[in-house]
Formats: sequence, C-alpha cells, structure tokens
Amino acid sequence: MPSTLSQYLSQRQRLVNEALNRYLPKGSAYPPSIHRAVRYSVMSSGKRIRPILALAACEAVGGDPRQALAAACAIEMIHTYSLIHDDLPSLDDDDYRRGRPSCHKRFGEALAVLAGDALLTRSFEVLAQANGHSAAVHLTVIREIAAAAGTNGMIGGQVVDIEPVRGRQTAQRLRYINTHKTGALIAVSVKTGALLGGAAASQYRRLSRFGERIGLVFQIVDDVLDGDGVARLLGVERAGAQAQQLTQQAVLELAPLGVRAERLRQLASLIATRTA
Amino acid sequence: MPSTLSQYLSQRQRLVNEALNRYLPKGSAYPPSIHRAVRYSVMSSGKRIRPILALAACEAVGGDPRQALAAACAIEMIHTYSLIHDDLPSLDDDDYRRGRPSCHKRFGEALAVLAGDALLTRSFEVLAQANGHSAAVHLTVIREIAAAAGTNGMIGGQVVDIEPVRGRQTAQRLRYINTHKTGALIAVSVKTGALLGGAAASQYRRLSRFGERIGLVFQIVDDVLDGDGVARLLGVERAGAQAQQLTQQAVLELAPLGVRAERLRQLASLIATRTA
Repeated sequence: MPSTLSQYLSQRQRLVNEALNRYLPKGSAYPPSIHRAVRYSVMSSGKRIRPILALAACEAVGGDPRQALAAACAIEMIHTYSLIHDDLPSLDDDDYRRGRPSCHKRFGEALAVLAGDALLTRSFEVLAQANGHSAAVHLTVIREIAAAAGTNGMIGGQVVDIEPVRGRQTAQRLRYINTHKTGALIAVSVKTGALLGGAAASQYRRLSRFGERIGLVFQIVDDVLDGDGVARLLGVERAGAQAQQLTQQAVLELAPLGVRAERLRQLASLIATRTA
Repeated sequence: MPSTLSQYLSQRQRLVNEALNRYLPKGSAYPPSIHRAVRYSVMSSGKRIRPILALAACEAVGGDPRQALAAACAIEMIHTYSLIHDDLPSLDDDDYRRGRPSCHKRFGEALAVLAGDALLTRSFEVLAQANGHSAAVHLTVIREIAAAAGTNGMIGGQVVDIEPVRGRQTAQRLRYINTHKTGALIAVSVKTGALLGGAAASQYRRLSRFGERIGLVFQIVDDVLDGDGVARLLGVERAGAQAQQLTQQAVLELAPLGVRAERLRQLASLIATRTA
C-alpha cells in the first residue's frame, strides 16, 4: 500500500481513462459524429468508481488488476450509456451532466439516443474479446453484467423511478429503485473483478455480498446529498445510520481476504462518506 | 424438402415466436410496464427474416436449426430494438410500425427508449447462455453480432442516414447506408447460423459472402418499394438489375453446399422478389 488513497485513485483513473481511449473508436472514425458524441460523454471527468471497484476486487482475490481492465471499461461504458439516455428530455430531462451540457444538449437528441446504443453495444463487444481468460469465465461475466444492466437490474430501477407514484412513496418501492437503478451495476462491478481475478467460490460469495451492500450505500448517499428518495422517507439521520450500518456489514465480508482487500475497504468508506 | 416454402416459413416463424416468448420476461414480471412495451414490439407480426436466415444457414452446413435458435432470437431482439429507437420522434418520427402504433405512441417516449435498451441488453444475455456449444464459439458469435450492430455496422448506417445531406446523394454514401443500416444485421444472421451449425472455414467464408450480398439486396428492394435511396439515385430499373445480379452472385456461393442450402436459395430469391 505504497501510496495514499488519493494517489491510488488518480493512478487508477488514469489507467481506466487510457484503456477507455483505446477501446473506443477514434473521434475521426467514420461516421465521426457518433464517435464524437460517444467520446464527449465517456471521456469526461467521471470518477470511475465502478471500474476502480472492479480492479480492486480483482486485486482483493490475488489477481492482477489488468486482468479486469477491459471488463471494467465495459461497465463504465454501460454506466455512461445509462446517463446519456436518462438525461434525455423524455426521461429526466437534464441539460447538464458532470458540469457540461448533457449529450443531447450538445449533439441533439437523435445522436444522444444512438450514442447510448453505441456504448451499450460496444461494451459487449469489448467483454467478448478474448484476453487470456477462459471463454467460460467471459461468458459468465457477460451474463452477470447483462442481468445487472437489464430489466431485472438497472433498467428495472429506472422504469420504477420514472413511473408516477400513486399514493405515498413506500419504503419497498424505494428499496427496489435503490438496489436496482444504481446498486446492481455497482454490485456487478465487484463481482466482475472477483470473477476475472480468479476468486474461489467462497471469496466470490463474500465479494458479491460486499458489492450489493455498497451498491445500496452508494444510492442512499446520493439520496442524502439530493434530499431525495430514502432520505426524504426516513429523514437524513436515519438514512445516514442505515448507510453506515450497511458499510460495516460490507466491510466485515472482506475480513478473510486480509490486507489484499485494503483498497476495497477504503473504497467502501469513500462511498459511504462522499459529499458529492 | 417436404413442405412448400410458405409452409416452411410459417413453421419457422412459429418456432421463432415460441422461443422469443420463452426468452422474454413475462408481461406480468415486475416492473410490468417495461415488459409489456418490450413484448408489444417483439411479439408483433414481424416476418422474422433474420432469425429464419440464421436457422437456414445452420442447416446449410449440416447443423440442427435448434442449435442456432437462441442466437436467432437475440438477433431479432436487436432488430426490434433498432426499430423502436428509429421510430422515436427525434429520429424517424414514425407513428406506425407493422400496422400498429409504434412503441412510443403506445407507451410513451421514455418507456420506448428503455424498451429498446432492454432488448439490446437482453439479446446479449441470451447470447451468453451456454447451450451445448463451446464457450469460444459463443464469444465469437457475440463479437460478430456486436460488431454488426454497432457504429461500424447498423448504428453507423443509421447515423449516416439521419445526417443532413449536403449536396447530392452520392452513390458512395448510399452504399454505406445500405451495407450498414440493414445489410450488416442480415449478413451476421447468416454468419451466426453458420458458426453455430459448425461450419468449416471455407463454408463460413462462402456463407459470409452470401449474407453480405443478400443484405445489400434486402436494402435495395426496400428502396425500390419506397422509391427511395438507391432507387431514386439509379432509377428503379437499374436498381432492380443490381439486386438481381447480387442475388445471383449470392446464390453461386451456395453451390458447394448442395441440397442442404436449398432453403437459403429460396430465401435469397424471396428477399429479391418481395413486394412488401
């Protein structure tokens, strides 16, 4: 653990950004408009939490983080596609994203729809590239990621989130949104890193539970920061206590992994205490 | 060859429709709105040309068509997602599709965006399900299909098609649209069937060329029927002659496959002479 957490994060962001740059067609490739829109959205100032979690989970089971780099980038592509589509006027209608005009504000709605489609498609192409793992592991990773991104995961959460609420927000509905809309992709980032790092079955189960819990924490903290969702339902204090409890439970799962899981512990704590 | 072509097509459509029904979550699954929107668009009166081509290509190399059924359904899901997104107001703005209100007219724009996303995601989940093939073959199929559906394939064609044309339609631009927007997914349907049927390398190369040519034919016939694109540029007569020539070249590729490729020959001729 030679560097501080902030040095570690910068180094990992650089690693992920360089890899994303390699995995995406050049902005000059034909037809250039779509590649410019894709790159505008991906190569922004994102924190790269999901890919960094995947790399740290890979390390936590003794793998070389480069084994998980392609899949980590694919997950970031899926995250970015979901932001582009969520920002569309017919969904959340957000004009800004990460401090810049959102994709459709900059390139128009048609190209924003297609840029999201392009990223989702490209993510699976990258996931299917052989890179030293057994093909069977690749297929497992693809199935897990597709399930987490689909109607039983991220898309399902988004659907429930945009549905008009009849009557009061129920805790059950909010929990569905939190576990699915954001939690599923965070959780599968950890699982993916574990699978590609060669996790034993028991390590995989522990890291899966770790991922599910910090996925929930991530969304609860989002809600607290926005004064929304769980925070509105439970109040900021109880929501904060819930996030803290989940983080402790998550970190307990890492105990048998020892010092190799130290970065994952730090990331869990970072997710629980972030302020933006 | 016990049945007429029309009996064969009905039987294959039924096979594909039953499988699609199995591969898609029930309309009652939570959250129901997205599954209803997905099923509304997929379970329509589509001709299922792409999946039927995949099954026929599988048979043409001596495979059992059921070996290609999951992948054939995945390709139909990708085709359907592309129709849902192309119909959106910001793209082609089509109110009707296959004689019914388009997905966004029936379910609203937000659900239509998400239904397209859901189908694209689900297609890769289905493709990654092990079903008797080697994992390596699955990965090759996923890479081929993702490439054909992405910015160097279908999405690329769609991007160029919606770009404002400066000056005259050039033959080069139209050829790009035709080979990419529709041609790429038709071509990869044939390739997928061949791969999953266990094609030898030389068979695969021949079927790839067959698929590329009939993909082009498909789009030229579309243009002739719509009085659009190539038909407007070359005139209906020259466009028709080009389609006929490409069909002949395509069918010649099938010669070494003998009688097992008879259905593919019939499908090529059907694509070249269809009137709707």
